[in-house]
Amino acid sequence: MAMDGYRGFLGLLVAALLVGFLSVIFTLIWVLHYREGLGWDGRAPEFNWHPVLVVTGFVFIQGIAIIVYRLPWTWKCSKLLMKFIHAGLNTIAAILAIISLVAVFDYHNTSNIPNMYSLHSWIGMIAVILYILQLVLGFFIFLLPLAPLSLRALLMPIHVYSGLFLFGTVIATVLMGVTEKLIFSLRENPAYSTFPPEGVFTNTLGLLILLFGALIFWIVTRPQWKRPKEPNSTLLQPNRGTPEGVEGSMAINFGNMDKSDSEINNEAAARKRNITIDEAGQRSTV
Amino acid sequence: MAMDGYRGFLGLLVAALLVGFLSVIFTLIWVLHYREGLGWDGRAPEFNWHPVLVVTGFVFIQGIAIIVYRLPWTWKCSKLLMKFIHAGLNTIAAILAIISLVAVFDYHNTSNIPNMYSLHSWIGMIAVILYILQLVLGFFIFLLPLAPLSLRALLMPIHVYSGLFLFGTVIATVLMGVTEKLIFSLRENPAYSTFPPEGVFTNTLGLLILLFGALIFWIVTRPQWKRPKEPNSTLLQPNRGTPEGVEGSMAINFGNMDKSDSEINNEAAARKRNITIDEAGQRSTV
Repeated sequence: MAMDGYRGFLGLLVAALLVGFLSVIFTLIWVLHYREGLGWDGRAPEFNWHPVLVVTGFVFIQGIAIIVYRLPWTWKCSKLLMKFIHAGLNTIAAILAIISLVAVFDYHNTSNIPNMYSLHSWIGMIAVILYILQLVLGFFIFLLPLAPLSLRALLMPIHVYSGLFLFGTVIATVLMGVTEKLIFSLRENPAYSTFPPEGVFTNTLGLLILLFGALIFWIVTRPQWKRPKEPNSTLLQPNRGTPEGVEGSMAINFGNMDKSDSEINNEAAARKRNITIDEAGQRSTV
Repeated sequence: MAMDGYRGFLGLLVAALLVGFLSVIFTLIWVLHYREGLGWDGRAPEFNWHPVLVVTGFVFIQGIAIIVYRLPWTWKCSKLLMKFIHAGLNTIAAILAIISLVAVFDYHNTSNIPNMYSLHSWIGMIAVILYILQLVLGFFIFLLPLAPLSLRALLMPIHVYSGLFLFGTVIATVLMGVTEKLIFSLRENPAYSTFPPEGVFTNTLGLLILLFGALIFWIVTRPQWKRPKEPNSTLLQPNRGTPEGVEGSMAINFGNMDKSDSEINNEAAARKRNITIDEAGQRSTV
């Protein structure tokens, strides 16, 4: 598995995992040490599941789901298996995000706090709805062997763009949520403006989450770290002498139109021939 | 100036300009109609310059600066002229961002409100400092004819990544700022949680700013809308039969390593030959 800049990739991956893991730990320390702990009683401990589940699922797991195709030791696994892992991680993230919404709505209703009035809630709700839509569309278009290849090629840049934009929106929403919660919780004794330990600690959590986003965004936009095409797809590759405008097309990292196109063609061909191999691959690797 | 999907580009550009312009108008309506207006008195009207200048400069003008190379009617202009426009717009954005900081610090100091305690202020300050650093580095490395071409080719993906990441961070910071300001201002009569007109209106402003970011991010990551290489650079283009890993490299939209490399080489060559032409181009177009 030769890879251009393998050690650089590994260093950034370890950094991303570390920063993501630290973000989850910091969130747990925040709610367990500085706040009321965790519980499911319609009170503050139930609300506290909201940040824990969002940072664990909607930030950390979603971030890993975004870069999972780029792990070079998975390049020997079938593309179909990797799609299942990508879809599976995003499904876990979506479920945790939904439970985190249940927690906050339940807390609000028990405590007679109105729902959905803040910008945080508006953007967060839009993000969850679009994330589920992205998941369902991705499942039917890219995972199930139903959609015609031309449709896949057409929608892949939109899928990639939407995924990255939603990830960024989720991080922005988390930072708004931290802001809201600190202002609400640190009114007096101590006030947020007096630099109390909880304020400084949770601001640091916000910085960690932003840094995690920066690392994932860097890893996923390095074209040299993209999963290579399937081995025999060169045969199906179109004429390389295409005009400049088309050459180098498709989205972000995301190679070019020709490449993705041939990859999709090849994948479909491989799927017809090698279903048993794919399944064996899944059994041996999962 | 043939362009792949020219009408789609034009539609999205008009949408981005409209949404960006609306964001500025909404911000003005917010501070003039719902808040205390504008002034430079150390009180609330001085603070109000903070959102106005940030949304105008750090969001709208920065967004335009990001996509300025992609306007197809500028493709007949020299690359050097376009770099001046890109750098100029970013300089204006930086100056407005700095004045917006002066406004908020001055207001805080006059009103005895502590500075730099919130997550909004931490991330915002980091963004302004990194933005100025990016501007200075960009000036010395890509605009002035000082840096060796290999250094330019090495740093261009970092420049592009940093620019987009900072733009996203600025938008996240604005959304945090809106959240803070609405919670502070709408405590009672009316409370933010009772859906008062100011809350709904300013939440909508937040959505507009997020939408502006989405449009800019889409426009700048479509590879088919990238400014074409200079006409004679094909001569300098390296062998197209490079291995897949390198082919299609470089960052985001940003073509590939080979392409950018040859573009930089070509540009240097063109600069030596055509300085007079460049200058004439600038005079006739600016």
